[in-house]
Amino acid sequence: MKKMMAEATGTFWLVLGGCGSAVLAAGFPDLGIGFAGVSLAFGLTVLTGAYALGHISGAHFNPAVSLGLWAAGRFPASQLLPYMVAQVLGGLVAAGVLYLIASGAPGFDVHAGFASNGFGAQSPAGFTPGAAFLTEVVLTAVFLLVITAVTRAEAPAGFAPLAIGLCLTLIHLISIPVDNTSVNPARSTAVSVFAGGVWLQQLWMFWVAPLAGGLLGGVLSRLFSEKAA
Amino acid sequence: MKKMMAEATGTFWLVLGGCGSAVLAAGFPDLGIGFAGVSLAFGLTVLTGAYALGHISGAHFNPAVSLGLWAAGRFPASQLLPYMVAQVLGGLVAAGVLYLIASGAPGFDVHAGFASNGFGAQSPAGFTPGAAFLTEVVLTAVFLLVITAVTRAEAPAGFAPLAIGLCLTLIHLISIPVDNTSVNPARSTAVSVFAGGVWLQQLWMFWVAPLAGGLLGGVLSRLFSEKAA
Amino acid sequence: MKKMMAEATGTFWLVLGGCGSAVLAAGFPDLGIGFAGVSLAFGLTVLTGAYALGHISGAHFNPAVSLGLWAAGRFPASQLLPYMVAQVLGGLVAAGVLYLIASGAPGFDVHAGFASNGFGAQSPAGFTPGAAFLTEVVLTAVFLLVITAVTRAEAPAGFAPLAIGLCLTLIHLISIPVDNTSVNPARSTAVSVFAGGVWLQQLWMFWVAPLAGGLLGGVLSRLFSEKAA
Amino acid sequence: MKKMMAEATGTFWLVLGGCGSAVLAAGFPDLGIGFAGVSLAFGLTVLTGAYALGHISGAHFNPAVSLGLWAAGRFPASQLLPYMVAQVLGGLVAAGVLYLIASGAPGFDVHAGFASNGFGAQSPAGFTPGAAFLTEVVLTAVFLLVITAVTRAEAPAGFAPLAIGLCLTLIHLISIPVDNTSVNPARSTAVSVFAGGVWLQQLWMFWVAPLAGGLLGGVLSRLFSEKAA
Repeated sequence: MKKMMAEATGTFWLVLGGCGSAVLAAGFPDLGIGFAGVSLAFGLTVLTGAYALGHISGAHFNPAVSLGLWAAGRFPASQLLPYMVAQVLGGLVAAGVLYLIASGAPGFDVHAGFASNGFGAQSPAGFTPGAAFLTEVVLTAVFLLVITAVTRAEAPAGFAPLAIGLCLTLIHLISIPVDNTSVNPARSTAVSVFAGGVWLQQLWMFWVAPLAGGLLGGVLSRLFSEKAA
Repeated sequence: MKKMMAEATGTFWLVLGGCGSAVLAAGFPDLGIGFAGVSLAFGLTVLTGAYALGHISGAHFNPAVSLGLWAAGRFPASQLLPYMVAQVLGGLVAAGVLYLIASGAPGFDVHAGFASNGFGAQSPAGFTPGAAFLTEVVLTAVFLLVITAVTRAEAPAGFAPLAIGLCLTLIHLISIPVDNTSVNPARSTAVSVFAGGVWLQQLWMFWVAPLAGGLLGGVLSRLFSEKAA
Repeated sequence: MKKMMAEATGTFWLVLGGCGSAVLAAGFPDLGIGFAGVSLAFGLTVLTGAYALGHISGAHFNPAVSLGLWAAGRFPASQLLPYMVAQVLGGLVAAGVLYLIASGAPGFDVHAGFASNGFGAQSPAGFTPGAAFLTEVVLTAVFLLVITAVTRAEAPAGFAPLAIGLCLTLIHLISIPVDNTSVNPARSTAVSVFAGGVWLQQLWMFWVAPLAGGLLGGVLSRLFSEKAA
Repeated sequence: MKKMMAEATGTFWLVLGGCGSAVLAAGFPDLGIGFAGVSLAFGLTVLTGAYALGHISGAHFNPAVSLGLWAAGRFPASQLLPYMVAQVLGGLVAAGVLYLIASGAPGFDVHAGFASNGFGAQSPAGFTPGAAFLTEVVLTAVFLLVITAVTRAEAPAGFAPLAIGLCLTLIHLISIPVDNTSVNPARSTAVSVFAGGVWLQQLWMFWVAPLAGGLLGGVLSRLFSEKAA
């Protein structure tokens, strides 16, 4: 139960911080934080959340990470569903809080996207569905390779949250223009439920592709594990 | 006494560095550091201050943090008032030094805000008082969750200042457009005393909301503590 | 074999993340990450890759690093060629994936550069070949000085990937305008093969100069080694 | 002798990286790194240099740091002059290399400033000499407080270069508009010798103020030392 609470809290923080910085601060005239600031914010949610909650739940905050860790043999199948439910719920609460905050500014329109992920006309730079799919699979797979490696028991203590958080920053630095960067179905779900319409219609992609990437990364991680080769 | 001196010095650094970067460098034409640079600066004041002074006073530098740590059962009530007085004094001295420096530039007008916090017409993006209040409560609460977790005795040594500092950076990346980001009544007091007028009239919000958030976070942290659940 | 796989994977990540952020996100109107974001991305590929794969292969991801470590007496000559082959192959695969993704955006033109390195008319700011050569030699040499020092057996555990990754960020912060920053022949080769034409004609420079710099840095590092002076 | 070589190399890197990023990359149209990128670059020169060379010379790279550490009782007077000479020489060589590189771009004019420090008409935002003086004294003093604290024998191993480097980043985030940020006479000397004219005439300020700040910080650090109070 404490683990579920930690996963919900961490995903709450990820969505509030990552999507919040995108909705509230990215496009402020002249002084806005831009895609680089949003990338940093997403990474820092995981960095801080993992330092704070990693000892309780492992700090997945992401269904694709939970699935990938299972594929890597590092997480029990029996906990997959409860973890994912907690992650989605935590993300939804964050999106609700963010909606309340954002509604306090003049001209806010949740249907303009609300930091949802999207492809085609919903991609920031008009990328095709195929490009978005490939991007999500590859980036989630590498994310899992990094996560599985830096959380090995033999790794120096304390550096995993730093490496994992900054990996998520890097992933966003690469791919926000492609599809607003998901690699995390809970994050995608949370905001697209509020954005509705076409954003919600495209949500399937941001479950399928990150989960596929998580699986791929989890399986590939076995090639690098201590006992391999 | 040495603890009070450390709290005053750390809050001096927080206000000089955080508000100083906002006043002096954020809006420089073309090359200015923007909200992302100010966010980084606020975080780095705490990161560096906590590495330097944490072993002396615990490096609160913030009345909401002191109150939250008391609520978490990690700080004695008897030291609350002296800590808060030292924090406010340190912040005021920093605002004075910053005023002297900023007055050395052509066209400086302290009444334009001086990095004060504000809502409504004083919010950078025109956010309502309610949005500002909610933002401050939620962000300060999570800040306390992170602080209480990363300073557990069981946490790997040395990473707490990094996590706490970067958490403050993240908080600013999210919320500068809402109300210029407080989560710290000492920081808000220091500059609004100089800015005066409407800025000073709104100062109450940036005591009430961060303190409420600090209390909330401190109480919630007990749910995650080692002995719980 | 596992080492080769790690070098290929790490260089894949370096090219996908570094060149990917440059191609996909640097110039996005108003919100783009700019040279600073690209610099951060390159550094974070190495930071994350080294935390993940350093214990397997040493995390060179760069022929100039392998050669420099050999010159420093820290890497066997017999592994130079296989390491370099793995690095170039990993980089080429990344460039292929990036090409597929980038092709999904309207108006993409691989011959416009594709994040290739260049001098003269191909330099972002029109720098001469001599300036590019000097820049590459000096920056690669210091890169090797840092790498050899922070990977000493006596250095505190866990900080090497942080220092090396952020050193690569620094190198890019300095020199992207000069020649788009190489210091890594595998990175240069990967994208210029796709860009073709004049970009490919200038590739020799980004083998010669980084390798010369790597050699120089490796030799100089002996002056600072524990046993010296 | 090895210590002098390390100080010269580290200051070379500080000037090449910090001033180099300012001269070459700060103002690139649309994509330039701005003051925030330059701030990060200066900090990363010290972060990487201190991880690489700290075990040899202590990684001062700055006459004001050497003087402040002496005032703190942490550095022998007999080594002050040789350290300062090595620092200035290393900085001058870096400025020479940077001059060669920068001369390879069309339209380069070393007399436009070459990243020199300045006040009045030479200040980026027209700050008075008094504002510049106060800024340099205060920021150098806090820099020394941080340095002396994080290098205590009792501090967790490995974090000092991180804290000190990011402190220098913070200092630049605050004060580049004031006087282009010195806090380091060797850095100021290196480039103003090349810029000449009024830049060289103002150099005295960037010896006097940082040295005064270093002394002040070194003395104040005794108040926080383990044995005090």
